[in-house]
Amino acid sequence: MDKLVATGTCVRRTDQLAAISLDKDGASSSTVQKSRFSSRTRIRSILGRPDGGAGLAGQKVEISGWVKTGREQGKGTFAFLEVNDGSCAANLQVKVDACVSDVSKLVATGTCLTVDGCLKIPPEGKATKQKIELSAEKVIDVGTVDPATYPIPKTKLTLEHLRDYTNFRARTTTMAAVTRIRSKITLEAHLFCDEHDICHIHTPIITTSDCEGAGEMFQVTTLINQSDKLERDLVMNPPPTEADIEAAKLIVKEKGEAVAQLKAAKASKQEITASVAQLTEAKEALAKVEERSRLKPGLPKKDGKIDYSQDFFARQAFLTVSGQLHAETYACSMGDVYTFGPTFRAEKSHTSRHLAEFWMVEVELAFAGVEEAMNCAEALVKDICNSLLEKCDDDMKLMAKNVDKACIDRLLLVASTGFGRVTYTEAITLLEKAVAQGKKFENQVEWGIDLASEHERYLTEVLFQKPLIVYNYPKEIKAFYMRLNDDGKTVAAFDVLVPKVGELIGGSQREERMDVLMERMEEMGLPIKQYEWYIDLRRHGTVKHSGFGLGLERMLLFATGMDNIRDVIPFPRYPGRADL
Amino acid sequence: MDKLVATGTCVRRTDQLAAISLDKDGASSSTVQKSRFSSRTRIRSILGRPDGGAGLAGQKVEISGWVKTGREQGKGTFAFLEVNDGSCAANLQVKVDACVSDVSKLVATGTCLTVDGCLKIPPEGKATKQKIELSAEKVIDVGTVDPATYPIPKTKLTLEHLRDYTNFRARTTTMAAVTRIRSKITLEAHLFCDEHDICHIHTPIITTSDCEGAGEMFQVTTLINQSDKLERDLVMNPPPTEADIEAAKLIVKEKGEAVAQLKAAKASKQEITASVAQLTEAKEALAKVEERSRLKPGLPKKDGKIDYSQDFFARQAFLTVSGQLHAETYACSMGDVYTFGPTFRAEKSHTSRHLAEFWMVEVELAFAGVEEAMNCAEALVKDICNSLLEKCDDDMKLMAKNVDKACIDRLLLVASTGFGRVTYTEAITLLEKAVAQGKKFENQVEWGIDLASEHERYLTEVLFQKPLIVYNYPKEIKAFYMRLNDDGKTVAAFDVLVPKVGELIGGSQREERMDVLMERMEEMGLPIKQYEWYIDLRRHGTVKHSGFGLGLERMLLFATGMDNIRDVIPFPRYPGRADL
Repeated sequence: MDKLVATGTCVRRTDQLAAISLDKDGASSSTVQKSRFSSRTRIRSILGRPDGGAGLAGQKVEISGWVKTGREQGKGTFAFLEVNDGSCAANLQVKVDACVSDVSKLVATGTCLTVDGCLKIPPEGKATKQKIELSAEKVIDVGTVDPATYPIPKTKLTLEHLRDYTNFRARTTTMAAVTRIRSKITLEAHLFCDEHDICHIHTPIITTSDCEGAGEMFQVTTLINQSDKLERDLVMNPPPTEADIEAAKLIVKEKGEAVAQLKAAKASKQEITASVAQLTEAKEALAKVEERSRLKPGLPKKDGKIDYSQDFFARQAFLTVSGQLHAETYACSMGDVYTFGPTFRAEKSHTSRHLAEFWMVEVELAFAGVEEAMNCAEALVKDICNSLLEKCDDDMKLMAKNVDKACIDRLLLVASTGFGRVTYTEAITLLEKAVAQGKKFENQVEWGIDLASEHERYLTEVLFQKPLIVYNYPKEIKAFYMRLNDDGKTVAAFDVLVPKVGELIGGSQREERMDVLMERMEEMGLPIKQYEWYIDLRRHGTVKHSGFGLGLERMLLFATGMDNIRDVIPFPRYPGRADL
Repeated sequence: MDKLVATGTCVRRTDQLAAISLDKDGASSSTVQKSRFSSRTRIRSILGRPDGGAGLAGQKVEISGWVKTGREQGKGTFAFLEVNDGSCAANLQVKVDACVSDVSKLVATGTCLTVDGCLKIPPEGKATKQKIELSAEKVIDVGTVDPATYPIPKTKLTLEHLRDYTNFRARTTTMAAVTRIRSKITLEAHLFCDEHDICHIHTPIITTSDCEGAGEMFQVTTLINQSDKLERDLVMNPPPTEADIEAAKLIVKEKGEAVAQLKAAKASKQEITASVAQLTEAKEALAKVEERSRLKPGLPKKDGKIDYSQDFFARQAFLTVSGQLHAETYACSMGDVYTFGPTFRAEKSHTSRHLAEFWMVEVELAFAGVEEAMNCAEALVKDICNSLLEKCDDDMKLMAKNVDKACIDRLLLVASTGFGRVTYTEAITLLEKAVAQGKKFENQVEWGIDLASEHERYLTEVLFQKPLIVYNYPKEIKAFYMRLNDDGKTVAAFDVLVPKVGELIGGSQREERMDVLMERMEEMGLPIKQYEWYIDLRRHGTVKHSGFGLGLERMLLFATGMDNIRDVIPFPRYPGRADL
């Protein structure tokens, strides 16, 4: 297939890689290349060649994969199978003669096959686009299907329906393409950061800090499990009664008296020691009985509140909503860093844009202001678009054909065009002008509002018709850590808006002045004490720094044209659903 | 610095990258290279050159970083500052004259600086190893330190002490080197998988499945938060009393009677409708009162158990202990896949080898047996070792000097030597022989035991003196999903053992035969129903597949020689501790 190429693409490392991997795939040679860790040859190394595999005619090859469609022909004397192994969107056509294998067992959609055979040019005149097909000589392995219960039959299924079968949905053409595109974007983010000497760090998933005091957080705990265990234990082994405690107290009293008597009687040291030992034992038994008597079902409490000192981390813990604050600590020592991890929001959003678990690339640059962070964000997005155009051309063509015909044009636009940049104030003025000229928005436009998705999309899709960076937002609608501008009203925050999805990236310069930061935190009623570790970064060797976060799933919606965020992550988590 | 090179290293993609990045860093040119997203030049692009930076003498440059050590000299007329920016282990010496800046404000350890100046060859005869130093012409920015409270002074600190300051500890030489090595290993894992066309997928962090039924899991919930809110609400707004309910019931009764009377009196349709509306309203009010009266503080219960239908995901949810089972679903459609994510164990281990949150690379290969998975695991480990030798030579030399003088030799050994392979049964025989010859182990050696760390290390360090793969373990000590061998006694599981840490990788061929899998699950008392989605992979188009997991932190302990796993992850989580 032809490579899609963006204008203005500069030669960079990934191009070198592409050249190498072409060689590796044997695309320029006339022998097939086996997988290194399997005896099979990937279908992509056959059909992904510039000649569509024709140059491999006559070669012996072992291929594996799942039957997409199969049909018996010639009254069952042979079968044609379209086989896909996940390595590329295209299927390899495999012809199996009845003398090679019982073809009736091979044709069901979903059957898994490993086949030895010979690559052949299909007979001319046949209504096929295949440049090559496999003539089976031996069927090595078959994993059959129970067609009665197989949830991914040949018929077209809705994406919504497929969400009930996350264990199988990557066997569909669209979901497999999305998976490969996701993998490529992920890799490209890593390559971009490596190329610019941005150090990868793993910020924690379990955190005892709240990044903005804003997002709802999931709690991570072992307390419920502990209290369940206790409850079961109390049933098996009921707590002591008042009478048990009294009895234990009585024994302590008796033993105490015995010691006193022996001492008064000036008994031998040996006798007294033995008696004291008995008293100690009685006291320990009493303490145990009393402790058990205090055990109550339910979560442990202290002063009327849940006693988190008994939780796993000896304090309340949550799933992270962003790695940014933690990344800042490393930027303030390592220089430029990034984190690429899962983040979580416990918000009951049932929209097509929100997940409870999603992935973010967060970059934090030391010795960089907001403009440099914008440059970096723009470069990263362009880079990803270019890599998809260059490396995922067949998958992108598939998305354009099946999902969103504009998706390749969008990538080309972004890859080749400088992003627009306007201040928030300018953006509001532009929107107000549009309103004056009759444009209707559901949400009112005035300085101070948080831009709604409709505003963002109007700016990038209609007014600018290209990606747009809006910066210098009113401080009231932004987080405490964003750097206050000299006007005292706005902060050095920015959002990257792109056609189709609106906000793709959010970033800012961070407030590096300790006094200003603390003032802002007080203004917003944040618990200073909980953030001492963050404030300390400003107390000791503070540094101008800036960063941003790119939502991976948002990037995927943008790139693929998929409509629902639940279909661009393998195992979506949202209110009421966490399958598998 | 000289590159460390393993014998037997084949030329591969990363070498090409190295060549490119040398160019990019300007190592072969005579001009300094600025960062793309900052006006500064990274210290590594000066000192990391083969000539140690000498070839850049005379160049103007802006550098930034934190002062490691500073000393005023010449009665305060100038100062020497050792500055580090996290880009490499080495510090750049910066000379600042008092006429350029108030040097007394610059010398404190931890001070952050941005300095413009000129690179100069230090005067000969000076007791310095520096090939180049910076003569400051302008101090652009200073972030001062409060030496009284700065937790990372010049004096040597224990790693244990530094764990109390995770926000600052990457400013120490050792922790910064570990961070760079960690970043490189992470990248190399991605590059390795990309090179072998292994598709990256993100397995879920929040899961409703338990990978082995073995590991203790953290619970993820919003129930406690919800019940806290309810409790506060019930205090503000107490639940209705019995009397309130009776009153509401009375109203319903009255309104019901009124309707009946109107109907008996054959009142107008309008009158009856109005009366019925009042009745409906009264019934709704009663329902609300009754519902509120049922509200109880504490977690919601149903039939004596916690009612998870009210939790965020409408069922009990946990943090994943492994992405393997989920990865298998994608291997059974995409072919070869890997996942690289955080995993969690809620075990109260206080050892130097266990974390509650750690990262794993998990590879799953379709159409591959256990031997091919072993080949892949071996290749991945060798690859990582080679990349550290090639790309992290200065950091590795630092680790060898400061932490573990054997660490480079270990990497060279692993990179250049074929791994040994023995069956579990052979390994037991070898250990029994050692015992017969007088070797003492704390744990008894006999067929059927799980190898203890002392056994593993004896095998790899003493007997084989190289990495060792032990395979075919007794089924009793391994997980349900591992493929049963023909002997009926062992499973196709393997562990990769390496000197210093013992088990680095665990893997297996997965049981692809549905009947055998279900038999094993029943034997082990696992809830078949909960795993239907997993069994279904065998029901429909089953495929021979194998995989393994590499613990990132274990790999780091092996590579760096660090002793405690808490020091090779930025923000360690373990019982009682989850700072920040």
